[in-house]
Amino acid sequence: MTGEVTHKAPPLRADARENRDRILDAARTLFAERGLDASMREVARAAEVGPATLYRRFPTKQALIDDVFADELRACRQIVLDGCADPDPWRGFASVVERLSVLNVGNQGFVDAFMAANPHSPAFTEHRADLLHRIRTLATRAKRTGHLRPDFVLDDLGLFLLACRGLSATAPANRPLAARRFAALALDGFRASEANGVLPRRPPLVAEVLRAPRSG
Amino acid sequence: MTGEVTHKAPPLRADARENRDRILDAARTLFAERGLDASMREVARAAEVGPATLYRRFPTKQALIDDVFADELRACRQIVLDGCADPDPWRGFASVVERLSVLNVGNQGFVDAFMAANPHSPAFTEHRADLLHRIRTLATRAKRTGHLRPDFVLDDLGLFLLACRGLSATAPANRPLAARRFAALALDGFRASEANGVLPRRPPLVAEVLRAPRSG
Repeated sequence: MTGEVTHKAPPLRADARENRDRILDAARTLFAERGLDASMREVARAAEVGPATLYRRFPTKQALIDDVFADELRACRQIVLDGCADPDPWRGFASVVERLSVLNVGNQGFVDAFMAANPHSPAFTEHRADLLHRIRTLATRAKRTGHLRPDFVLDDLGLFLLACRGLSATAPANRPLAARRFAALALDGFRASEANGVLPRRPPLVAEVLRAPRSG
Repeated sequence: MTGEVTHKAPPLRADARENRDRILDAARTLFAERGLDASMREVARAAEVGPATLYRRFPTKQALIDDVFADELRACRQIVLDGCADPDPWRGFASVVERLSVLNVGNQGFVDAFMAANPHSPAFTEHRADLLHRIRTLATRAKRTGHLRPDFVLDDLGLFLLACRGLSATAPANRPLAARRFAALALDGFRASEANGVLPRRPPLVAEVLRAPRSG
């Protein structure tokens, strides 16, 4: 799985391709602003196509979600691969946190799709398991160098990603500033320090995500 | 302003009171789960009353919002007053952060209403200006004792509150755990430490909120 979208169907005619692009644009905007709550009916209305056209191109909402977020999923994967390739694991971990915050801040839908407990999407579930495994390994290395706090768990990154989703309530022009400042504060919270408090019990976010069935 | 809702109208008849309670319950649930995007039409449908009944009780959406969140606004105010009354300013500040996170995590609508740049609600705007002023004073005291990082600004608390809004995407049963763990991590980010990184420029969240006109 690389996040590539493969279309086995023959190439689309120009008007069909135009419809498809219009649907993807409309869905991208709706999902980014409102998360995955936006309905297929709202997508069709925003794209100015009939429901029949929408369902011919995307038989299920998940098929639409997979295509809408193919770019984000690829970007997300690259961010994690880059961070893991850094010879300094804390610097790599910090780059993952900062770049993911910027990727996620304006896109509630992508965070929803990535974290959803039951997404019925092989693209998302396989990516997630792989990326979470890589980040866990990176975090272990960053703990060994003494930079990442020893009580950090992957669920704390889950909390951070969901939190970035909340920042999308800021005005669009402020979002990159909000994301970077928030990431810097979060990193100082993740950093090992003798002054750090004792963390209370964690919510089982990642366990929920990984328990999600592979297909629906 | 104390957040009390005063009704100048004569006492309602039993059936009118029942309608009013049903509308408030429905709006509370919708706003908590979806934020203030939920429309008056959706509120009427969920409450199983006609639009005419809804608009007779609440002529504007803001009037409904004010009544729905009167309890939260009172709770929020009490949290800030309690924190400011603590003789140890860092402990007071920490209690504000932790208790606000628990108050906000399950309630997107309240965070939206509190942070909205243009709410047309004297109740919210006056409370906000007063509470933000009190928190700013508390933060200054907590910096003086050397516990709060010197580069903390009120916008960082704004980021934190918006972030709590994002945590409402967790399953309801996990929200209190998520809120407390997230607050503890955030507090370690807010804590003064020589290991802390340099914070990038802040987004002008609070300025936006305080610039909001007093009436619309």
